[in-house]
Amino acid sequence: MSLNTAVLGSGSWGTALANLFAQNGNPTVLWGRDAKVLESIERSGRNPKYLAGLDLHKTLRVERDLVKAIEAASVIVCSIPTQNIREVFSGLSLGDRILLNTSKGLEVGSHFRVSQIFSQLAPECRYGVLSGPSFAEELIKKQPTAVTIASLDKALAESIQNAVRAPYFRAYTTLDVVGVELAGSMKNVVAIATGIVKGCRLGHNAQSAVITRGLAEIARMGRALGASPATFLGLAGVGDLVLTCTGPLSRNLRAGILLGEGKPLNEVVRELGGVAEGIYTTVSAFELSRKHGIDMPILREVYSILYEGKSPKASIEALMEREPKEEAV
Amino acid sequence: MSLNTAVLGSGSWGTALANLFAQNGNPTVLWGRDAKVLESIERSGRNPKYLAGLDLHKTLRVERDLVKAIEAASVIVCSIPTQNIREVFSGLSLGDRILLNTSKGLEVGSHFRVSQIFSQLAPECRYGVLSGPSFAEELIKKQPTAVTIASLDKALAESIQNAVRAPYFRAYTTLDVVGVELAGSMKNVVAIATGIVKGCRLGHNAQSAVITRGLAEIARMGRALGASPATFLGLAGVGDLVLTCTGPLSRNLRAGILLGEGKPLNEVVRELGGVAEGIYTTVSAFELSRKHGIDMPILREVYSILYEGKSPKASIEALMEREPKEEAV
Repeated sequence: MSLNTAVLGSGSWGTALANLFAQNGNPTVLWGRDAKVLESIERSGRNPKYLAGLDLHKTLRVERDLVKAIEAASVIVCSIPTQNIREVFSGLSLGDRILLNTSKGLEVGSHFRVSQIFSQLAPECRYGVLSGPSFAEELIKKQPTAVTIASLDKALAESIQNAVRAPYFRAYTTLDVVGVELAGSMKNVVAIATGIVKGCRLGHNAQSAVITRGLAEIARMGRALGASPATFLGLAGVGDLVLTCTGPLSRNLRAGILLGEGKPLNEVVRELGGVAEGIYTTVSAFELSRKHGIDMPILREVYSILYEGKSPKASIEALMEREPKEEAV
Repeated sequence: MSLNTAVLGSGSWGTALANLFAQNGNPTVLWGRDAKVLESIERSGRNPKYLAGLDLHKTLRVERDLVKAIEAASVIVCSIPTQNIREVFSGLSLGDRILLNTSKGLEVGSHFRVSQIFSQLAPECRYGVLSGPSFAEELIKKQPTAVTIASLDKALAESIQNAVRAPYFRAYTTLDVVGVELAGSMKNVVAIATGIVKGCRLGHNAQSAVITRGLAEIARMGRALGASPATFLGLAGVGDLVLTCTGPLSRNLRAGILLGEGKPLNEVVRELGGVAEGIYTTVSAFELSRKHGIDMPILREVYSILYEGKSPKASIEALMEREPKEEAV
């Protein structure tokens, strides 16, 4: 059954998902704040800012008015930066619509995962989260892509799974909202750590070790906060982490590389032309780990490098010189 | 405490480990079958065939006679191809020496993991296995490297952990021999699968999905055969898998790429100049999965491509078009 869909956020991933929904016969509108991007999609059927050279499905419509965009929608896909969600959704009446989140990160201040933000803003809406290893460009090119959809409402997850199913797109369902959200948020912190190792030119063994021990930290955090361990072995866990840390340079990986090369945070932000999500999430996660007493040595070192001026070299020595011990998640 | 060590196998990893033991003050001899390699190590302190341009520690000795090599050793490190282990160790009297295995794979015919081969050949020896994301060249260059040592004998694992500890080398211990051996063996099969996706030019999303769903299959096999699930989240699991599938081209990854480009197995073996371990392990693992009724769709498709002439394209379609379902390990 097709679903009336509104995608909020016209960045690369929002555009690619809107395209997927439209392609699959779901009446779909895309809302965004960037007037130029919307105009170009309307005029040329392309998003040249984020997805140059790729044709979007002809049925995809754009909408500049947020209230109008969601009016007819039974599914709202959220694909806007996590730190902006509260502002965009405040005062918007979602009713019992399905909210499918694809944004990753922990809100600064509240330490909230996105589902927690929505349970405050729109307690009646039905919530799901889609996550996994997925570059937007490859999805638009119809290259095989597999993701996880998590919801406490199994029927909701299955209705989305059905609405987006394609020969090149495969979604698995799970009930573990907490695990999928934590994995998606924390992978950006591990990507920064991996970038730091890369920037210090320490080799592939060290990068793989940081990815692995980073995953163990995420799983440990998950256990403390009620997630299912299996999630971290899945597409939203290992899958997304591997893609972000070893694929073409993501923003968070680039941020880490610049830090590893010895640049201070303000210069990194200037070179990136903005903040990478993991830079925010590091703060929230660090505070959260302290509050709950979770041992997260890699997170702590990333925090120290970002916000306390610690040198990457000193951090790596600190990690390598810990007492030998058993391998534990 | 230092350990008298004999390393069997003068390939890149055997040489790098022998170097690590020697560097750390353990009296170490290296045995191998390649007379040229041994002679060059003796003469120039280098292994130009596998580790060109890298100086080995001056205390590392070579030994051409296998019986003499192990005479004074309390630890024997096995780093020879899995399919040759039975032949090399047959008739050798190990007594209660520590056997530290670093070879990966499942023996063709018996389907045995390496510890099972040794429990037949040398039932009195005390067994451990060292595994994890580790390129030999980086270890010799003293770039940070972290691995797992598994043994049912905790004191054994800790004595090795201690003997190899260095500012650039960190070993974690675990009791899960089965999990570490399965993870190390099966990663080569998943590397072939990832190579196939790469050779078909299907993109990074698909590669990450194969790595992740491949890991889920390995964990499922582990559960059926008595491994601990946490092992697959660790250095010998995710860590080694990520390095092999995303790092500089390994033999198994290269084999997969050639298959993905449409070459038949005999041509692949010719281009590689020999068989990659995963090509053997696919057979053993496939037979083992059938015997125990373990659902392993990626393994099955790799088997079909290698041995039944199935086209990679047909395999990928088969994997993507399975019924949508819950994400399960």
